[in-house]
Amino acid sequence: MDFKNVTAHAKANVYFDGKVVSHGITLEDGTTKSFGVIFPGSYHFGTEAAERMDVIDGDCKVTLDGSEDATAYSAGQHFNVAANAGFTIEVAEGQAQYICSYIQG
Amino acid sequence: MDFKNVTAHAKANVYFDGKVVSHGITLEDGTTKSFGVIFPGSYHFGTEAAERMDVIDGDCKVTLDGSEDATAYSAGQHFNVAANAGFTIEVAEGQAQYICSYIQG
Repeated sequence: MDFKNVTAHAKANVYFDGKVVSHGITLEDGTTKSFGVIFPGSYHFGTEAAERMDVIDGDCKVTLDGSEDATAYSAGQHFNVAANAGFTIEVAEGQAQYICSYIQG
Repeated sequence: MDFKNVTAHAKANVYFDGKVVSHGITLEDGTTKSFGVIFPGSYHFGTEAAERMDVIDGDCKVTLDGSEDATAYSAGQHFNVAANAGFTIEVAEGQAQYICSYIQG
């Protein structure tokens, strides 16, 4: 899963004491993505822009804000999160990896 | 610390149960680098190609294979590791971040 002709940002984003770590890129069209790793636990993220989350490794369960339902996602699947909303993502074991694509309004 | 016109690889390298996480890039000239985060602990890495390690955040101590001396490095400093050698890197608290540049022979 490679992205060509991008600007890569060397400084990582570290959340929840290292349980979630990501590095970001900016594509030629100015849009941004982050590649992340999630270790076991449950984490809530708020969104500003809408996000498309592609799971590229492992398994996770996702509950969108305002919903009671946790949906399972595995590598190859994706989910969308509205702008100015949020979601809780849970990894039971091992690790999950994702590509987060930030979608401008 | 940004790198333009590169290919970014979305899959992370995860070492030591997540205590070291990195994402890699390939530059236009075909050379490769990885951006990494190191959490508290002591970790040994072997090298194939020679490596230049630029510390870009936090503090660490490094002992090159074959040496008894641990040298402290902070953000803005770098160290070199020979090909087919190794080093032990230790982070006491918080996190350290690095850019590893793989140097072809």
